[in-house]
Amino acid sequence: MNQPTVPLSRVLEPATLLQQLRGRYATKKFDPSKKISPQDWSALEEALVLSPSSFGLQPWKFIAVNTPAIREKLMAASWGQRQLVDASHLVIFALKKNLGEADVKHLIERTAEAHGVSVESLEQYRQTMVGSLAGKKAGIDDWSARQVYIALGVFLSSAAMLGIDACPMEGFDPAQHDQILGLGAKGYSAVVMAAVGYRATDDKYAMAPKVRYQAEEVIEHV
Amino acid sequence: MNQPTVPLSRVLEPATLLQQLRGRYATKKFDPSKKISPQDWSALEEALVLSPSSFGLQPWKFIAVNTPAIREKLMAASWGQRQLVDASHLVIFALKKNLGEADVKHLIERTAEAHGVSVESLEQYRQTMVGSLAGKKAGIDDWSARQVYIALGVFLSSAAMLGIDACPMEGFDPAQHDQILGLGAKGYSAVVMAAVGYRATDDKYAMAPKVRYQAEEVIEHV
Repeated sequence: MNQPTVPLSRVLEPATLLQQLRGRYATKKFDPSKKISPQDWSALEEALVLSPSSFGLQPWKFIAVNTPAIREKLMAASWGQRQLVDASHLVIFALKKNLGEADVKHLIERTAEAHGVSVESLEQYRQTMVGSLAGKKAGIDDWSARQVYIALGVFLSSAAMLGIDACPMEGFDPAQHDQILGLGAKGYSAVVMAAVGYRATDDKYAMAPKVRYQAEEVIEHV
Repeated sequence: MNQPTVPLSRVLEPATLLQQLRGRYATKKFDPSKKISPQDWSALEEALVLSPSSFGLQPWKFIAVNTPAIREKLMAASWGQRQLVDASHLVIFALKKNLGEADVKHLIERTAEAHGVSVESLEQYRQTMVGSLAGKKAGIDDWSARQVYIALGVFLSSAAMLGIDACPMEGFDPAQHDQILGLGAKGYSAVVMAAVGYRATDDKYAMAPKVRYQAEEVIEHV
């Protein structure tokens, strides 16, 4: 079968894409009265689910925290940053610890199901993944953390396209977050988070010029 | 001054955003005859420049490799994956090694310039960043790598919105890439790459169902 592939359509002009990427910023002050609509939030959750990862291993969990009392506790373990309680939504990005053979097996089973093939037919693929993970053994959690950051990038871009503000945050105590959310016991660990919602009209950071190095400095052509 | 902030506009409906994120995939076979337009490529480069990073430290360099002979060399150090030579464009994402006080100084100078303030007025901010980096000392390169993966996520999303295919790739020998591109001597190290262009009409991976875990498995609500 030589089915023609569906090409990816183009949904934004380059200028529009850049307008959004320039317009987003790490929102320091959210308007607590403005909430993300259920439809938009559902799309952002699906964007997380759809995020790419190496081998498609998805070594992550995303915790959407809506309970005010839990948000308060997390804020106390995050230098008191108000975004955690003022933003419409809050997501903790966690990595799956000690990713290994059982996780590969799980992905293989999911792949077999999605592709309608047998688990046995994917044995070589399974071995490749197991071998690759074993080679990373020393830093497997660091490797998983990198994958989580792809999801963060996809999430922040997606929010910007929907006109939703966000603040990615690393400034918190992961051990405390793990304990508050019961992540450690389940084999996960918090690595980064994002508060999402709508900026307060008086967030002074909103009007600050974006600080980026010149393209000539960070992009090299060879 | 209490300037009203410019709200972020909404440029995509949720369904359109998801259609693109569902439509993208790790392209295994590119059509070598289809090239990304200069206007689109320029937007993708700017998307890289605009990528967020912790503290805005931008601990990275992006190498756009257009020289065929260099692409061939990199392919030889990347398990012979044809995407490196067949794709319209190829970007190597590198981290800045041993990020430290000098890099913070550099960012402070850029911030002072962009915001029209003195370097001295940013001293407390400088100290916060230096302290934070010092606390990460053991794993500073791992931390920088995470930031690079945010840029990867932004880049892959951006390409998808422009209708451009991409293949993120970790399967290569970083030491060889560093040597081929002369990165090591400049204090950088390759961590991941992306081939970008347009899928070949017979890429069998294009029609394969996307393999993702169910939302209930990777998203938790508390």
